[in-house]
Amino acid sequence: MATLIAPTNHSPQEDAEALWKAVKGWGTDEKAVIAILGHRNASQRQKIRQAFHDIHQEDLIKRLESELSGDFERAMYRWILEPAERYALLANVAIKNAGKDYHVIVEIGSVLEPEELLVVRRAYHNRYNRSLEEDVAAHTTGHLRQLLVGLVSSFRYGGHEINARLAKTEADILHEAIKDKKHNHEEVIRILTTRSKTQLVATFNRYRDEHGISITKKLLDAASDDFLKAVHVAIRGINDPKKYYEKVLRNAIKRVGTDEDGLTRVFVTRAEKDLKDIKDLYYKRNSVHLEDAVAKEISGDYKRLLLTLLGKE
Amino acid sequence: MATLIAPTNHSPQEDAEALWKAVKGWGTDEKAVIAILGHRNASQRQKIRQAFHDIHQEDLIKRLESELSGDFERAMYRWILEPAERYALLANVAIKNAGKDYHVIVEIGSVLEPEELLVVRRAYHNRYNRSLEEDVAAHTTGHLRQLLVGLVSSFRYGGHEINARLAKTEADILHEAIKDKKHNHEEVIRILTTRSKTQLVATFNRYRDEHGISITKKLLDAASDDFLKAVHVAIRGINDPKKYYEKVLRNAIKRVGTDEDGLTRVFVTRAEKDLKDIKDLYYKRNSVHLEDAVAKEISGDYKRLLLTLLGKE
Repeated sequence: MATLIAPTNHSPQEDAEALWKAVKGWGTDEKAVIAILGHRNASQRQKIRQAFHDIHQEDLIKRLESELSGDFERAMYRWILEPAERYALLANVAIKNAGKDYHVIVEIGSVLEPEELLVVRRAYHNRYNRSLEEDVAAHTTGHLRQLLVGLVSSFRYGGHEINARLAKTEADILHEAIKDKKHNHEEVIRILTTRSKTQLVATFNRYRDEHGISITKKLLDAASDDFLKAVHVAIRGINDPKKYYEKVLRNAIKRVGTDEDGLTRVFVTRAEKDLKDIKDLYYKRNSVHLEDAVAKEISGDYKRLLLTLLGKE
Repeated sequence: MATLIAPTNHSPQEDAEALWKAVKGWGTDEKAVIAILGHRNASQRQKIRQAFHDIHQEDLIKRLESELSGDFERAMYRWILEPAERYALLANVAIKNAGKDYHVIVEIGSVLEPEELLVVRRAYHNRYNRSLEEDVAAHTTGHLRQLLVGLVSSFRYGGHEINARLAKTEADILHEAIKDKKHNHEEVIRILTTRSKTQLVATFNRYRDEHGISITKKLLDAASDDFLKAVHVAIRGINDPKKYYEKVLRNAIKRVGTDEDGLTRVFVTRAEKDLKDIKDLYYKRNSVHLEDAVAKEISGDYKRLLLTLLGKE
């Protein structure tokens, strides 16, 4: 379930005019901006952008970029974009920072549904005049490159058939590959980048049944290099996206100094999808409400926007 | 230009009835089948299939499969299918025969336009309940696997910008990789599977300017293993699909015993696209008309169908 609270009807023209009033002249009325855009869904935001452009011949996003600053600006910028465009941006930023942020690439390549990923790849073409896999490949090497390129290029079968025999064989391959860290990277990559998600979840379950420990826990012990860390993220993103996102939030909040990028990413990409479920998981896991945890860590307009996206009136 | 001669208007119902008459009872009127289906475009053939099913509750393709035989049956079967479905079938047949037919996979991954390839991948899901890259990966290993999976998973940027500096750098990388056969397979794969076709053609041109020999000629000398052979096919398919297909035909015809699969594949996949251009290239290169060369090699209904697709009235 989503957390975003958006009106069922709104006037894009009136919203555009109210936003114009909030940003024009000296100073900006950030509260007004949040009150409007923090309560509009993707299609409503695009209509407002269009109306803003029709009336004032200006790009709302560019205008806000020049008016806002810091984490608030970055969050608002990401929030306004259409989902596919936003993923393209997140991927591009992560690629440029590949040494540190490859987990964002893995996340996009493992959490998104096959058809969603195609739309993101198309948006990447339009935005950057290159392909997503092209940029990922040019900024990485070796097995990590193979895994990342494979994940973002995948167009997995979306059906729900399970081949139990195959799940056993491939659970064994994964087990051997993790145990003996050097071998069979190629097979791990093949399995994680080509099998359907339903099949992979069956394989992960089989692994746990056979070895009494989940493959992600096992990997955590073994994950010393970037490749295995990326494998770990991929498996978690495929296995249970909501649980995965809960952990991204938990890590972002508990880190000394707070990981604003992680926090923002989860909020803007999930507020219209399943942030309610992620929030419930967060409470179950941490005995603290997500909104209280977030409110303690961040402040100002940035905090106001995130809490608005979280459904706080 | 296409060679197929199809009427601008036809009645799917009348066609379906004429086909029914041609296949029902004892014996089949192959000439009638060719006279109809050999003169209908993809959308017309689908409507006939639908009308046949509506009237007789039977699948036209299955019926023809049971009535026809040999090369003629295989060609007719491939011809009737929609292009994306047909490529999915061709890929699947090639995968099952991977040791011998990987060039068909390379062809599909390099000749098709980016958006066409996506449609083929979707058709593969629907037909086989698995993904194309999944089946390719499961039947190959090593660098050949990486190249084939990369080619069929690619969603290249379709724009026509050229980065001249990059063309130089990557022409050098390709040169080094071919000269010194063991190294840099990874970079060859990266370049061939992720760059836009326009950029790659610029890179191949740069290679020729710099080394006084085309990269495909150079590869021909070096192509001793399956990987380099596949690289050779990929470069030719990307560089100039029509020239590539002319050569597939030339090889199919000059081979002792004729390569019917190659012949059929080019005719059914190109008759509605550019077989006219390929035919003209064939004449220029061989001083023999394609239809004469084909007529000498094959016979019967199979010959009749192919010549019909070639535009012979």
